[in-house]
Amino acid sequence: MSIDKLQDLIRKKKNPTVAGLDPRPDYIPPHILDAAIHEKGETLEALADAFLTFNKGLIDALADVVPAVKPQSACYELLGPAGAVALAETIRYAKEKGLYVILDVKRGDIGSTAQAYSQAYLGRVPFKGRLLPAYDADSMTVNAYLGSDGILPFLQDCQTYDKSIFTLVKTSNPSSGELQDLITGDRNLYTAVGDLMARISRETIGKYGFSSVGAVVGATYPSDMRTLRKRLENTFFLVPGYGAQGGGAEDVAPAFNKYGYGAIVNSSRGILCAWQKDGAGESFGAAARTAAIEMREDLRRVVTVV
Amino acid sequence: MSIDKLQDLIRKKKNPTVAGLDPRPDYIPPHILDAAIHEKGETLEALADAFLTFNKGLIDALADVVPAVKPQSACYELLGPAGAVALAETIRYAKEKGLYVILDVKRGDIGSTAQAYSQAYLGRVPFKGRLLPAYDADSMTVNAYLGSDGILPFLQDCQTYDKSIFTLVKTSNPSSGELQDLITGDRNLYTAVGDLMARISRETIGKYGFSSVGAVVGATYPSDMRTLRKRLENTFFLVPGYGAQGGGAEDVAPAFNKYGYGAIVNSSRGILCAWQKDGAGESFGAAARTAAIEMREDLRRVVTVV
Repeated sequence: MSIDKLQDLIRKKKNPTVAGLDPRPDYIPPHILDAAIHEKGETLEALADAFLTFNKGLIDALADVVPAVKPQSACYELLGPAGAVALAETIRYAKEKGLYVILDVKRGDIGSTAQAYSQAYLGRVPFKGRLLPAYDADSMTVNAYLGSDGILPFLQDCQTYDKSIFTLVKTSNPSSGELQDLITGDRNLYTAVGDLMARISRETIGKYGFSSVGAVVGATYPSDMRTLRKRLENTFFLVPGYGAQGGGAEDVAPAFNKYGYGAIVNSSRGILCAWQKDGAGESFGAAARTAAIEMREDLRRVVTVV
Repeated sequence: MSIDKLQDLIRKKKNPTVAGLDPRPDYIPPHILDAAIHEKGETLEALADAFLTFNKGLIDALADVVPAVKPQSACYELLGPAGAVALAETIRYAKEKGLYVILDVKRGDIGSTAQAYSQAYLGRVPFKGRLLPAYDADSMTVNAYLGSDGILPFLQDCQTYDKSIFTLVKTSNPSSGELQDLITGDRNLYTAVGDLMARISRETIGKYGFSSVGAVVGATYPSDMRTLRKRLENTFFLVPGYGAQGGGAEDVAPAFNKYGYGAIVNSSRGILCAWQKDGAGESFGAAARTAAIEMREDLRRVVTVV
């Protein structure tokens, strides 16, 4: 079970943190950006090169501190085809360094299209009797609005290729409640989504008690998180909203079970932009590493991963 | 209003059809695939080249028959970075031929990330005081599960760049009802999504009475479509599910208002794979054109666009 692989890495590093690799033009240290512009002009191609250089530096600095990274696909899609190259290369590099790669793409579509997304990001592309890898991440985020037939192709590839997915359940943004909190019968919509995903993934529960279909549950709604943790005991949580979005260690604590298992907390800007505090862009890796260690210690105050 | 631009094109061609550009390896005529493999081997790069050649041929054959094309992003993402190049070039070529390009990407994320998706696909990327285009489609599909703050960045770019979006409301797949049909208060979830989108886009209604935020409403649930058409009178519908997915002209008729306005019907496989009926891959363009004309005539039986 790939979700076991993630929990193993969390235990090994005693750190349930995933570093978001969400580069933006203004997050890049000037010396990296200037070098890329010098070579390729003020173009999206230069930005893509700068993103990749930045990411590789971050991965090198973080690889023994965090178990996982989460590239936000939008940041790369923003740069057109050059961004796709930077994303593919970032995934490859992070996996090479032993990190578990959760690609944040939030895909969701009808069955045959979901299968293409799954082949693109988790599985392999069948062509002339061979199976070719495209992006080949360890895990990805998905959107369940289309129901189970849009999720099953991913689940199938999770089984075949030992991967995992995280379905959007309760997101961290201010308006997440507009639809997700709507009451339907004796539960709200996000609970219905969580229940449906738990039902279809029951056969995939691994050695730590978690299935291959995790859930995105935001740190910004800690009481909802507490309720979900009790209800979805076999669902691993990916927790955005810590740090820049306002959540603290106490807010994410309810995501974990009594063994400190079952969740990983994301931080993006807090780690990526740590170098901006003292402005020394040259040492962005060291600054990111220090920030990641501070986050680890902050989480250890409230969670003990045994 | 960009949605007016689409309705203008539909009126001009007297055809409310959008041709889905959803290439798959087995949809490509052998002479195109063989030529690409001859040059680049049995690789994803060869497939991407073949997709682009196929698309250009289709666009040339269809440009005076259909008003719009809808590339399905998953088909291109499947090929890794090479697929992104094929997608960008397909969009550019279709626009050059006067077609309205609806990119089917179904993105949905928190506000800052939604903004990146919007800049990537509809707007421009701010960099060093300039605004650079990335994919620059006319329209795209979005997923509203995160609520209005994940939609507003797209709406803003619709205004700035004269573009439109289509939100998933009632999708065409078999399990679409699992979540979308859940009852919440006096309506179901998909109606709640439609209502929310209508509310936030009210200020963008154009000369035909439709806002910049359309809705995806599947042909496979015609009675739901009829109810939605009455309720969401200012919402333009993008209708998948005609043809290969089982919907016929009678099923899509309720999507249109009494002037024959307010909807566009997608066909992908029926047009793309028309050449497979007689196996003559060399004339795939002519076969696609014939299929598109047949579909136009089929729709004209039930809809008169004045």
